[in-house]
Amino acid sequence: MRPSGRQISELRPVSIETGVMKHAEGSCLIRCGDTHVLCTATLEERVPPFLKNTGLGWVTAEYGMLPRATNTRMRREAKNGQSGRTQEIQRLIGRSLRAGIDRSALGERQISIDCDVIQADGGTRCASITGGWVALRLAVNKLMKAGDITSDPLTDHVAAVSCGVYAGQTILDLDYAEDSQAGTDANFVMTGSHGLIEIQGSAEGATFSRTQFDELMNLAEAGITQLVEAQKAAI
Amino acid sequence: MRPSGRQISELRPVSIETGVMKHAEGSCLIRCGDTHVLCTATLEERVPPFLKNTGLGWVTAEYGMLPRATNTRMRREAKNGQSGRTQEIQRLIGRSLRAGIDRSALGERQISIDCDVIQADGGTRCASITGGWVALRLAVNKLMKAGDITSDPLTDHVAAVSCGVYAGQTILDLDYAEDSQAGTDANFVMTGSHGLIEIQGSAEGATFSRTQFDELMNLAEAGITQLVEAQKAAI
Amino acid sequence: MRPSGRQISELRPVSIETGVMKHAEGSCLIRCGDTHVLCTATLEERVPPFLKNTGLGWVTAEYGMLPRATNTRMRREAKNGQSGRTQEIQRLIGRSLRAGIDRSALGERQISIDCDVIQADGGTRCASITGGWVALRLAVNKLMKAGDITSDPLTDHVAAVSCGVYAGQTILDLDYAEDSQAGTDANFVMTGSHGLIEIQGSAEGATFSRTQFDELMNLAEAGITQLVEAQKAAI
Amino acid sequence: MRPSGRQISELRPVSIETGVMKHAEGSCLIRCGDTHVLCTATLEERVPPFLKNTGLGWVTAEYGMLPRATNTRMRREAKNGQSGRTQEIQRLIGRSLRAGIDRSALGERQISIDCDVIQADGGTRCASITGGWVALRLAVNKLMKAGDITSDPLTDHVAAVSCGVYAGQTILDLDYAEDSQAGTDANFVMTGSHGLIEIQGSAEGATFSRTQFDELMNLAEAGITQLVEAQKAAI
Amino acid sequence: MRPSGRQISELRPVSIETGVMKHAEGSCLIRCGDTHVLCTATLEERVPPFLKNTGLGWVTAEYGMLPRATNTRMRREAKNGQSGRTQEIQRLIGRSLRAGIDRSALGERQISIDCDVIQADGGTRCASITGGWVALRLAVNKLMKAGDITSDPLTDHVAAVSCGVYAGQTILDLDYAEDSQAGTDANFVMTGSHGLIEIQGSAEGATFSRTQFDELMNLAEAGITQLVEAQKAAI
Amino acid sequence: MRPSGRQISELRPVSIETGVMKHAEGSCLIRCGDTHVLCTATLEERVPPFLKNTGLGWVTAEYGMLPRATNTRMRREAKNGQSGRTQEIQRLIGRSLRAGIDRSALGERQISIDCDVIQADGGTRCASITGGWVALRLAVNKLMKAGDITSDPLTDHVAAVSCGVYAGQTILDLDYAEDSQAGTDANFVMTGSHGLIEIQGSAEGATFSRTQFDELMNLAEAGITQLVEAQKAAI
Repeated sequence: MRPSGRQISELRPVSIETGVMKHAEGSCLIRCGDTHVLCTATLEERVPPFLKNTGLGWVTAEYGMLPRATNTRMRREAKNGQSGRTQEIQRLIGRSLRAGIDRSALGERQISIDCDVIQADGGTRCASITGGWVALRLAVNKLMKAGDITSDPLTDHVAAVSCGVYAGQTILDLDYAEDSQAGTDANFVMTGSHGLIEIQGSAEGATFSRTQFDELMNLAEAGITQLVEAQKAAI
Repeated sequence: MRPSGRQISELRPVSIETGVMKHAEGSCLIRCGDTHVLCTATLEERVPPFLKNTGLGWVTAEYGMLPRATNTRMRREAKNGQSGRTQEIQRLIGRSLRAGIDRSALGERQISIDCDVIQADGGTRCASITGGWVALRLAVNKLMKAGDITSDPLTDHVAAVSCGVYAGQTILDLDYAEDSQAGTDANFVMTGSHGLIEIQGSAEGATFSRTQFDELMNLAEAGITQLVEAQKAAI
Repeated sequence: MRPSGRQISELRPVSIETGVMKHAEGSCLIRCGDTHVLCTATLEERVPPFLKNTGLGWVTAEYGMLPRATNTRMRREAKNGQSGRTQEIQRLIGRSLRAGIDRSALGERQISIDCDVIQADGGTRCASITGGWVALRLAVNKLMKAGDITSDPLTDHVAAVSCGVYAGQTILDLDYAEDSQAGTDANFVMTGSHGLIEIQGSAEGATFSRTQFDELMNLAEAGITQLVEAQKAAI
Repeated sequence: MRPSGRQISELRPVSIETGVMKHAEGSCLIRCGDTHVLCTATLEERVPPFLKNTGLGWVTAEYGMLPRATNTRMRREAKNGQSGRTQEIQRLIGRSLRAGIDRSALGERQISIDCDVIQADGGTRCASITGGWVALRLAVNKLMKAGDITSDPLTDHVAAVSCGVYAGQTILDLDYAEDSQAGTDANFVMTGSHGLIEIQGSAEGATFSRTQFDELMNLAEAGITQLVEAQKAAI
Repeated sequence: MRPSGRQISELRPVSIETGVMKHAEGSCLIRCGDTHVLCTATLEERVPPFLKNTGLGWVTAEYGMLPRATNTRMRREAKNGQSGRTQEIQRLIGRSLRAGIDRSALGERQISIDCDVIQADGGTRCASITGGWVALRLAVNKLMKAGDITSDPLTDHVAAVSCGVYAGQTILDLDYAEDSQAGTDANFVMTGSHGLIEIQGSAEGATFSRTQFDELMNLAEAGITQLVEAQKAAI
Repeated sequence: MRPSGRQISELRPVSIETGVMKHAEGSCLIRCGDTHVLCTATLEERVPPFLKNTGLGWVTAEYGMLPRATNTRMRREAKNGQSGRTQEIQRLIGRSLRAGIDRSALGERQISIDCDVIQADGGTRCASITGGWVALRLAVNKLMKAGDITSDPLTDHVAAVSCGVYAGQTILDLDYAEDSQAGTDANFVMTGSHGLIEIQGSAEGATFSRTQFDELMNLAEAGITQLVEAQKAAI
């Protein structure tokens, strides 16, 4: 039934390759099917002005897409400024990752997560969160190994997956062909123990019902479990 | 228990005053407690380029806030450009209102909804959607009265309300004092018949559970019912 | 003779409603006929860098217009930046209000006046000055009541009115229909005792003579007297 | 009494050198004392969109200043965008020159006047108008010589001069040292026959009286007469 | 002698992997040591306005760098606009590739080359040109295979290499450690037959002599020969 | 053979007039045929942040062109921002002038060179460097005369000239008519003793050979010798 031929509750093949960037404190290339995102963590011993002398650290994120990551070339944002969509996504990534960190255990330092979409086939914001967490984990591991922090500030895994209503059917992990035809599109960000961090559900044509939304959340929980497994395997 | 002294499931007083702007095709001033938003609808007999010769109309929205709508004066966006938050909100308003309209019944014309926050006390995006729909309704009524369209393109009411987890308790319609302390904040956009258009739930500190989220949705459904009553009374 | 049916030297009905904004240190909604401007004063205990350690205060102003304040919707300046016209107007408002204040009696603090045009029907810059002064007055009263300053820094009222040559006749207080057809348009900013603060006269088609300009100034003086009465009544 | 040692009603030495730019359709270098402005006219056989098929032409102006035209180097506007002051000045120049032209005799073509301040010592906007008119005159002469237009669209000379109140005394043609100390600063734009095009008077500290303003206008009329003589001599 | 331990005339290991991007008409990942650049070619059946109806095609290029491609994270250009350096580089890439193409054989179509630096260790502009040519070659091959063009518009290979004076010694293909210490840095763009397309030599401290420059060009010719071999091997 | 009628190795007439700007610490108007550039030096007793407490000075440059310096009016960069070409040129001027200065002898101060093209006929960047050096020399002389520095920080003259291949022939100092038809265009920046500072050679159509490039450099050396003579004569 799905253009991808996948089962209703079947994730695309996920791979997370770590240590792909020479300079970054943490990095991975996450592949969810044909969606490929390069995630790097940059550690800096400073915080934004509003956090000075609070003892709290900060995690922030930026998101970008190579112009030809998509089927039709997009205009380069360096020439036009970041679109509203880009800003919305990077705010989501930052918010999601901060939900899984004890900022006082991190101390007054900042970790910047860059998520750059090399190739896009739907679900880039979710892949960015799942991969971004791995980069964050690696940078934090480095800090702990160096003895700069003693207790682990990461309280749980953070991962994200999209679900949707396609041809009247609730399905997991939409690729671009599915997403562009879906009646409803929902993104779920959860911890490894299925604590909810962020839910974004949106009707694209017809509205959706509470029952459908419940089914989407069931699918999401199953997907998150698998993505967290992939994160664990990668580290 | 609530700073506002309201019951857990109690909306702030809502008033919707229509016809407040001399020039606009539709307008209202919506007051949800101390949150006041001026909503206007502008009708234009043209559509964006991507809709030319499709027979389909368009509804779009823009959002703004007066610099001193808030307790501390904010920098004027005309001097600095729209923030990511502003863009995110106006995309949400437009998407929400489009979900309640039959764009082919509207025909090739565009209705622009401007939502300008005169005074802010939490929940400005929800008030903008609820009030924006009234402005839209009035502009469409004008079109129908003039005989420019024959069948009503508005398929149902559209309204929005926020809910949240405050001091461990799920509550309806957060004002600023509640919102700034809430552990979870969720916005629900629904039709008059409780069809879901948009759900945005976000953990601000601790994560939230499925059970809590279900309670939030119960509160939201009750709130939407009342807001739709206020819309009906206004028109 | 006038489209408005008014006498040559007749102001539009003026009303000034104070205390309309919950958060601002001073605020009013001024209505000059169908021109409605919301004016707020924001008090800050800091001055721009060039005034640090001088003992002098500062008054500044910003001006904006809601997109549908006018008959045809204007593009939102938050999306495009402030136009030259907007910048010119807000520089005029600030300059005018500073002419009526003893900046050393104010002390090292800044009052920002925001003038936002809710509805426009000609004469928005003049209404902004007249209403802006009321907001300023209220904020200064608050400072004095709190004992933060002892002598009143406001040296006199400041008000503004437009005059013009319409169909060969000099008239007072042009509305949009008159202004768009006027051969000459002049704005006068004066103190309560008719001290001149700013004169801006501009030929729109034919030039104007010294005699005509003298008549315009006579009209303006009469108009200012009435506007200052309205200011007094409001406070 | 004046820092410049000039009489109260004495202009600075004026020189207008024409034909200084190889490429422009009209050009001059106007020197008013140490204020030097290069003015060029560019003729284009097209009009802005709002004038298409109206039979009317257009005159527009742009203004700039070399970074080291002034005593302290200013930031280059190409790096920061045009300031409000620059936009205000170029709008004034364009408006002033349009007041002296019959746009239907010009026909559907546009003349752009560029006024670039090479060296500044007060009064740059006035020198730009006086010199800009000469560049305009030369470009129109070229059109007439070529037979492209038959009746002269220029209805009269246009020139401008500043006056002010300095040390309690009304004076003509302020240089920078005088302008920076003046209590009132006023710019007058007139035709050769003293028809008024634009008046801009501004109190810098104390307000000014009607009597003082009358004296300023007397000075201005005398100054304009001499500037128009200089324009005639140059062509 | 070299920090890299390489011989004076030794290139870094070069690898060019093609077909790395699903959507692009041509793509490769070029690795020159630790400098990795992703190059894509986008084919569009349109040309810039100035080429319409000329029968000529166009090749253009854009250049970017991931924020953490470098040792210290750089600010994202999407947030700040393209730097002068970025613009200079992308103009160079475009100019270089156009020098190797017969634009009339290409016909009225445009090929956009995007060069995105994934990891940087010196020589990114040269790697972009060498890799960009491969992406261009692949896109042109696709056009020819499809029969859209009949004669090959590519007249020769185009490749680029940097040389410099390091510790008084002329060396080939500087990496970052060498480049940051080099007294002179020169980039050479050549065809496969050593026709010169672009030379950019720059003294960083002391000036350089004609003799030194001749040695740099000898090194460059040898390097280009090897890079062209790598291009041939990749296709 | 040349459109200009000049010999192959003949410079355009060069004149350098100094002291042309009242306010600047150093200034000249350089004329290379019909290319006229106004160069000013601004001395400031501060350095950019990255040089604080290093004991080193800085020389920087900015470049601009009046809108009607060229045959067709160009858009004013103050309205659109600096083009890539402008930024590339001003980076080149700054780099070139810094190559001729001992920044530790200059001490912690900055000299900003502004090069503004009043009229353009090819070779504006070269004229800017040659004239910019004269402005720099004059500003440094002023510093030395005042006893602010004791040893001369200028190590040699710096001048620049363009050469090119026109109709198959190598020629010196291209004007616009020649430059727009040239097959190759090369700019050479050298010291008075022919030390090389910068070489930029670019094929515009056909590639160029090493032999041709050698001839261009011969021409350049002869041209630089004459330009340095003109600099000496001017000071």
